[in-house]
Amino acid sequence: MALVSSLTPVFVAVLCVVIAFVLRSFQKTKTTSKPDSKSTREARPWVDEDLKDDTEISSKDNEDDEWVDGGEEDLPHVPYTPTRYPPEEMLERSQQFYSLLNQRRSVRFISPEPVPRSVIDNVIHAAGTAPSGAHTEPWTFVVVAEPETKHKIRLIVEEEEEINYRQRMGDKWVKDLERLRTNWVKEYLDEAPYLILIFKQAYGILPDGKKKTHYYNEISVSISCGLLLAGLHNAGLVTVTSTPLNCGPQLRLLLRRPANEKLLMLLPVGYAAANATVPDLKRKPLDDIVVHI
Amino acid sequence: MALVSSLTPVFVAVLCVVIAFVLRSFQKTKTTSKPDSKSTREARPWVDEDLKDDTEISSKDNEDDEWVDGGEEDLPHVPYTPTRYPPEEMLERSQQFYSLLNQRRSVRFISPEPVPRSVIDNVIHAAGTAPSGAHTEPWTFVVVAEPETKHKIRLIVEEEEEINYRQRMGDKWVKDLERLRTNWVKEYLDEAPYLILIFKQAYGILPDGKKKTHYYNEISVSISCGLLLAGLHNAGLVTVTSTPLNCGPQLRLLLRRPANEKLLMLLPVGYAAANATVPDLKRKPLDDIVVHI
Repeated sequence: MALVSSLTPVFVAVLCVVIAFVLRSFQKTKTTSKPDSKSTREARPWVDEDLKDDTEISSKDNEDDEWVDGGEEDLPHVPYTPTRYPPEEMLERSQQFYSLLNQRRSVRFISPEPVPRSVIDNVIHAAGTAPSGAHTEPWTFVVVAEPETKHKIRLIVEEEEEINYRQRMGDKWVKDLERLRTNWVKEYLDEAPYLILIFKQAYGILPDGKKKTHYYNEISVSISCGLLLAGLHNAGLVTVTSTPLNCGPQLRLLLRRPANEKLLMLLPVGYAAANATVPDLKRKPLDDIVVHI
Repeated sequence: MALVSSLTPVFVAVLCVVIAFVLRSFQKTKTTSKPDSKSTREARPWVDEDLKDDTEISSKDNEDDEWVDGGEEDLPHVPYTPTRYPPEEMLERSQQFYSLLNQRRSVRFISPEPVPRSVIDNVIHAAGTAPSGAHTEPWTFVVVAEPETKHKIRLIVEEEEEINYRQRMGDKWVKDLERLRTNWVKEYLDEAPYLILIFKQAYGILPDGKKKTHYYNEISVSISCGLLLAGLHNAGLVTVTSTPLNCGPQLRLLLRRPANEKLLMLLPVGYAAANATVPDLKRKPLDDIVVHI
């Protein structure tokens, strides 16, 4: 008994080391096997679901990793002489451009009146002139005019948005939203004559079936969306910029887009409703956004 | 002694529970405090350096997490009646907009001729009308005209770019680049009358000093850059879209921008040089980028 008692500290020490080792191994396995999906799940809950579509893609491929200056392919060069304007005309054109775009607002009240499809096509064609990483042009614009599909989109968006509000987001997000009038009823998804869903192509498929990374696809497609928004406004149409949380995979399947495409934005498009209103917000003055050196 | 011995199992059990608790807490702290920086380091080598600027910011703040439909603050609503055009005029305007933008190209040969600063200001003012997540307007446009600062920027960009080419990037990246004429000599950074460096504000600072997450700041600023590119082209100016790898922190410090700002793009701006050439590349036809449903 005395022997057992004197051995107790040794036994305790050995047991502790064994337990510590087991616990550490367990934790290590847990952290090294899934660090990205874990952190992704915490940081971007809805992206995680989208990743199920292409588990072969490494996070390196899936992230926007490298940007190559736009449009410099290994092609013969040709002279380029863009239109030049005298200084006064430049000034006037730049002033008019600002005045035009400064009238643009995000509008949730969209008239169901029909809009010529060729106008939408022209604006998308213009959006497709955006620069892109290594000239990959990694965008697909899905234009939905069919009422039934629009309604299915609405149901998907509203359902997921309600879940987001109620469950997924932290206090901070909900608190930020409280300041906003946003709610998860999106009538405009039925009413707008067109819904434009903009997909970014995370990678391309080469003729041999291999995947080709699209560097900086999200930035490229966002730039393209900038041109799209300018073009819609220039044509007298309105929209509201939205990125429906968590809906990417469902909407991708509904619209039968391939697995390399991820939803970036959803824009309801049409004329402003006759009684359209917008929040009375202001934009920052120029001096708050520009710094001269 | 017998009492002590009979208590040994209890003692061991208690000790084990305490050790397990301590170890678990330790691991938990470790995994919750830094899992993202680990995965970020693996997935995006150069972003990691940038994160050194603001280690207090969690990755949740730093990622583009949530987007709120643009411009819907908790403000009184006012009527909004944007200009409407008859269908023929809409069609013509949309066609002209496409024709204008389709003439834009990324140009590396920029004339050193001076350009009126007010033109640049107008174009930036227009870019600042972009929608942004929760109307945060998370952009800063730094316009560099001073030759010495331009040259410092060139040195930073060229040095980092050479390192990227030679060391950091995998075989795939280098192979992709071989197809491109890009190299790390960037004369245009000295020659262009202006360099516009566009920073995204990852978060804002509230009056009480607390940080306010800027949801979807990267997408918002990229949209704004789309408007900027359209505005520059509309004024008869050229640029080439670039995102200098790894240079963000150095350029931020050089330009004395605060820690919440991250470099997104660097645009050299001016007239096209008289002998400017561009690669003879084509854009995808409309049918390749649009799907109608």
